[in-house]
Amino acid sequence: RTVVIPDDPELILKTVQEEWATHDVVLMSGGLGPTRDDMTKHVLTGWWGTELVEHQPTLEFLYKRYAERGRAMNQLTKSQALAPKGAEVLHNPVGTAPGLGFSRDGKWLAAMPGVPYELFTMIEGHVLPRLLKDYPGNFFAKRVLRMANVSESEIALELEDIEDHFPEGVTMAYLPRMDGLWLEIKVEGEQEEEGKLTAALDKVADQIRHRMGSRIYAENGDSLPKLLGEAFAGAGQSLSVAESLTGGSLAAEVVSVSGSSRYFQGSVTAYSPEAKIAQLDVPKALISEKTVVSKEVAIAMAEGVRAKFRTDFAISTTGWAEAPDEDTKPGAWIGFSGPNGTDARWITHYYRRTVNIQRTVQQALSMLLQKVMEARA
Amino acid sequence: RTVVIPDDPELILKTVQEEWATHDVVLMSGGLGPTRDDMTKHVLTGWWGTELVEHQPTLEFLYKRYAERGRAMNQLTKSQALAPKGAEVLHNPVGTAPGLGFSRDGKWLAAMPGVPYELFTMIEGHVLPRLLKDYPGNFFAKRVLRMANVSESEIALELEDIEDHFPEGVTMAYLPRMDGLWLEIKVEGEQEEEGKLTAALDKVADQIRHRMGSRIYAENGDSLPKLLGEAFAGAGQSLSVAESLTGGSLAAEVVSVSGSSRYFQGSVTAYSPEAKIAQLDVPKALISEKTVVSKEVAIAMAEGVRAKFRTDFAISTTGWAEAPDEDTKPGAWIGFSGPNGTDARWITHYYRRTVNIQRTVQQALSMLLQKVMEARA
Repeated sequence: RTVVIPDDPELILKTVQEEWATHDVVLMSGGLGPTRDDMTKHVLTGWWGTELVEHQPTLEFLYKRYAERGRAMNQLTKSQALAPKGAEVLHNPVGTAPGLGFSRDGKWLAAMPGVPYELFTMIEGHVLPRLLKDYPGNFFAKRVLRMANVSESEIALELEDIEDHFPEGVTMAYLPRMDGLWLEIKVEGEQEEEGKLTAALDKVADQIRHRMGSRIYAENGDSLPKLLGEAFAGAGQSLSVAESLTGGSLAAEVVSVSGSSRYFQGSVTAYSPEAKIAQLDVPKALISEKTVVSKEVAIAMAEGVRAKFRTDFAISTTGWAEAPDEDTKPGAWIGFSGPNGTDARWITHYYRRTVNIQRTVQQALSMLLQKVMEARA
Repeated sequence: RTVVIPDDPELILKTVQEEWATHDVVLMSGGLGPTRDDMTKHVLTGWWGTELVEHQPTLEFLYKRYAERGRAMNQLTKSQALAPKGAEVLHNPVGTAPGLGFSRDGKWLAAMPGVPYELFTMIEGHVLPRLLKDYPGNFFAKRVLRMANVSESEIALELEDIEDHFPEGVTMAYLPRMDGLWLEIKVEGEQEEEGKLTAALDKVADQIRHRMGSRIYAENGDSLPKLLGEAFAGAGQSLSVAESLTGGSLAAEVVSVSGSSRYFQGSVTAYSPEAKIAQLDVPKALISEKTVVSKEVAIAMAEGVRAKFRTDFAISTTGWAEAPDEDTKPGAWIGFSGPNGTDARWITHYYRRTVNIQRTVQQALSMLLQKVMEARA
């Protein structure tokens, strides 16, 4: 259960009391900064019936951090080293506000900064180790099977008889995602039953894999850029990207993972028809004949960028993120050029601009992944 | 107050009962789909003490929608037209699951699909009009003042005396954002006091504007791409982008707003030094002499893409999203070329890869916005 509340001292105290009374572990984020709108540390100090005292190791860390960045400490930044007496101070290596831990009667409350990368660092460094050690909980495992271009309800009907006979502890969720439908099959139960539960989970996953066949194009919940990175790893092959409506988002997704510089050479965003001609060598006559949003232009863009950057694979997008006029339905062509030839795929857009762009990007990544795997096979 | 819970019928019922007992308006999202993991509609039907009946207008809408997309209805998709008897059916124009409204004793609960663009469409179409009509609440207004490259705690100390004398109802939050620090000044109070409250808010905003001076580079909470779109609007000037570590994210942000095709011509992502030479005409000797992550190369990239796309303005990024070795601190140079000359700005990175990339993008957008405004002035 997650509860989100504003920076109001009364609401913070009431929520802390309620969650502490009903749960073993309470994780909080936000409100630990040094300005007046940050109230959580003061509320927690009162709740714990204690007072704020200076935490020397934090103060030393802050002096060092500010010195390294060439900035001076002031009374507000120094106040970040104040912590409730008796609380555990959770070191924050990537920010100035440390986390605070409170333990009693086997319960634990941890308050952490709300800045997302600080919070994630604290969760990895403090929360997960503590949970695994002191609150092991149930055994839990999952399998994710991913399909593109399928209907959720049709798949559900096809899997009806398998779902009717799920072993105990196994459940499945249908998750519509930007790249298609994810089937998330989960199992949960006693730690001692791990072997039996895993076998039940794998049996169900196998049944569904067998029924769905080649419609499953990827497994597990990793991002497509990560799966693409794994597909390219060690193969010594390279990739370039040509974009129109996606404006750079497709290339940005490709480089979102470490190590992408080993295969990604670069990209061109050619927004106007003139730029497609000048920067990607799309023949002017092709645009006149087929229009700028066409299968042929999508493929020509992929071929153009592939030649320009001399890569093994290239992927492209051209389309409408929103309807340019009443008669045109928005949608996009995704073009591909690689050692296994050229191809293109159309997707129709139904949504708002930013969603349409994201869908095009995810569909382009899934098509590219399938093509790279095919070329490998 | 926001509460997030899993798809568990007991937890859903318990949470609905608690929130209904303590609030006038309860908005829910998710769990309305046709598959077995979607339980919210059934729980709400039981909670309301009623039964599911077919809602004819929804069934007709679904038949029409499926026909348009060339897909057949099946028993699961038909089940989307079942609604609790006595509930208000909230039409969902962009999806297959309608929303459900329940009213009693001046209270209102609305359950909506969880798919984000469907939810936003329902909120715009059903929730906001209803809230404004039946639950007007307090008068509320805010001003957002944005600064880049400042220290939160130093600004807080500079504004201490102004904060000490805030008029009643005015509060301020210090919000660290990717593009810098946002000061969010808010006022809340009785609807009849609108004039007085707005005057108090504007007085405080003026005091802070005067104290902060040119450090405030933008106002209101609009995204930088939107502010950039406004800065370019009607000026007939054009923009191109050259990227390295940001890999396309910067161009993607620029095109995230409607109408960007009027000024954005295109971009090149040149990830390798070879691509910077071949695609952006960065002199090979400059890279050897200054290294690829340098002020000079950043400016050369901006000049290269500006010449290539023949634009008035160009912005570039080159840097390390993560440390390439132990001796190199990650960071990025942002390069600029425009009618008012060339410039570059360095930012040091302290965080994880994706955050460093996002920070570079936001700082590049804020630098570009400042430069475009300067050129206009």
